[in-house]
Amino acid sequence: MRIHILTTGGTIEKVYVEQHGAVANLEDKIERYLGRLRLPDTEIDTTRLMNKDSLEMTDEDRALILEAVRARLDAPIVITHGTDTMVETGLYLKRSLGELKFPIILTGAMTPLGFESSDGLQNLTESFLAARIAAPGIYVVMHNHVFPVDRVKKDRERAQFVSLD
Amino acid sequence: MRIHILTTGGTIEKVYVEQHGAVANLEDKIERYLGRLRLPDTEIDTTRLMNKDSLEMTDEDRALILEAVRARLDAPIVITHGTDTMVETGLYLKRSLGELKFPIILTGAMTPLGFESSDGLQNLTESFLAARIAAPGIYVVMHNHVFPVDRVKKDRERAQFVSLD
Amino acid sequence: MRIHILTTGGTIEKVYVEQHGAVANLEDKIERYLGRLRLPDTEIDTTRLMNKDSLEMTDEDRALILEAVRARLDAPIVITHGTDTMVETGLYLKRSLGELKFPIILTGAMTPLGFESSDGLQNLTESFLAARIAAPGIYVVMHNHVFPVDRVKKDRERAQFVSLD
Amino acid sequence: MRIHILTTGGTIEKVYVEQHGAVANLEDKIERYLGRLRLPDTEIDTTRLMNKDSLEMTDEDRALILEAVRARLDAPIVITHGTDTMVETGLYLKRSLGELKFPIILTGAMTPLGFESSDGLQNLTESFLAARIAAPGIYVVMHNHVFPVDRVKKDRERAQFVSLD
Repeated sequence: MRIHILTTGGTIEKVYVEQHGAVANLEDKIERYLGRLRLPDTEIDTTRLMNKDSLEMTDEDRALILEAVRARLDAPIVITHGTDTMVETGLYLKRSLGELKFPIILTGAMTPLGFESSDGLQNLTESFLAARIAAPGIYVVMHNHVFPVDRVKKDRERAQFVSLD
Repeated sequence: MRIHILTTGGTIEKVYVEQHGAVANLEDKIERYLGRLRLPDTEIDTTRLMNKDSLEMTDEDRALILEAVRARLDAPIVITHGTDTMVETGLYLKRSLGELKFPIILTGAMTPLGFESSDGLQNLTESFLAARIAAPGIYVVMHNHVFPVDRVKKDRERAQFVSLD
Repeated sequence: MRIHILTTGGTIEKVYVEQHGAVANLEDKIERYLGRLRLPDTEIDTTRLMNKDSLEMTDEDRALILEAVRARLDAPIVITHGTDTMVETGLYLKRSLGELKFPIILTGAMTPLGFESSDGLQNLTESFLAARIAAPGIYVVMHNHVFPVDRVKKDRERAQFVSLD
Repeated sequence: MRIHILTTGGTIEKVYVEQHGAVANLEDKIERYLGRLRLPDTEIDTTRLMNKDSLEMTDEDRALILEAVRARLDAPIVITHGTDTMVETGLYLKRSLGELKFPIILTGAMTPLGFESSDGLQNLTESFLAARIAAPGIYVVMHNHVFPVDRVKKDRERAQFVSLD
């Protein structure tokens, strides 16, 4: 089975920059951490689209994501993305795409991959399982939840996503 | 949402014993590692049934597991178990139980939780997601796969489960 | 043998704050990470003096550190401290204290404890060994170096300390 | 500064073998874990001599270690070694070598590198610091202790080394 990954940056890929004492989107981290998962009989095909804080994503960036998704509708897709505008991107994809044959999963993290208490590897793990077994549709997958993208919002204070239902 | 966990031992819970230079089932490890996962809005209820290498499980042990499962059919169940007889226990549950309302997930690990390259936390993470979204039935969940228990076997040489299909 | 620890904050103790996407001195981390070291026959006695970025340390803060050091000259002392003004604090201690019977070690980290590629636990480990075997004096200990405090400066660009010799 | 490393196996380098559910000396691990330490201005030169449980070391193996040490007396040496016969090897080196110009450090671990609660990286970190600052001589370095090799023995029950003094 094949799963496409599109990486766009966000907290999940941030690194700590010692010279500035702050985190930033400077390196691609997804593939390095995927190497920690066992995914036998799964062909992973990773495309790095950009490496941005999602608050800085432009309309052009979202058009680029849409184009990349359209070219990969033959298999499930996992998109790693900043959490602040993850739902916005997901809704844009939903408006732009017709009926799907496979699930499209948006995921990210509240704390960068590799930092203590990071949720990044958990969310990647869950996203790959959801990519394999969820019904066609567009979802936000984090923290043991699979939210349809039109029924979810980020709760910044609690650092999690919550259902609109 | 509620998820029951039943722990029975197996490689996933083994610890390294310095005095003997070998691994053994001496401590309960599942709850400690579950503390590393973010499971908001999920009520986890853990029951430690035994802590055994699954090659040493007896008919009485399996009867005990069945009894514990029967008492918890009101919600999904995750059973942590040694991989050598995981399928045998799953098939016994399938023969003994009638129609299910929720999934029952068997999982474990090829390398103990906390050892380098361990697949334990990945398998637990996947099992909790499968417990939430899989159809009712009995499954082995490991390495990004959700196998119906009557269509899977362990491939010891490759250290993974493979489909009988 | 007894070793005193005085904690003052700095990068080594910073945590990632999910609501702000930035690191800050909010929690005491030293004792938690010391629990990962094996220190048999060593009595560790930890005192939390403050939890500050060292660029924000005041003269009063340094007077407090000096007072705490003066009260513990009966055994080696390890002081965890931000790297930006670590040398300044060390030189102040050197000017203020007379002859010593035990070493006083200043240490910290370029990346917080528990973040990927952190040097924090390495530096703590080295500091405890230097506390045990170095000659009386005041030192900066990091990255496999033991620098006398009057012969060292931070090289911010290379994220390390370098000898003035 | 230069530090020589000689690796010989022992628990510190053992890996978990999934097909057998046991640990064994099959891979060289020291260099991989040294990559986690920051050692600026230190030239590390690693030589893999063998990869054996130290209970299986022969007289020929010890002669090989002695020969390798003799060829590297121009700088400090760190020898990674199984704990069971570490003292025996150290005493043999002491009997065979004359006056030294640099320290020779024997180290190892009670739990393999990368396993939860491993003391391996702590012991390597301490050994490199001792290699830099200890007086010429032959030592066992572990758990924040620097033991002269003729005044130490392993306490198997407590999984540590203890002084003969």
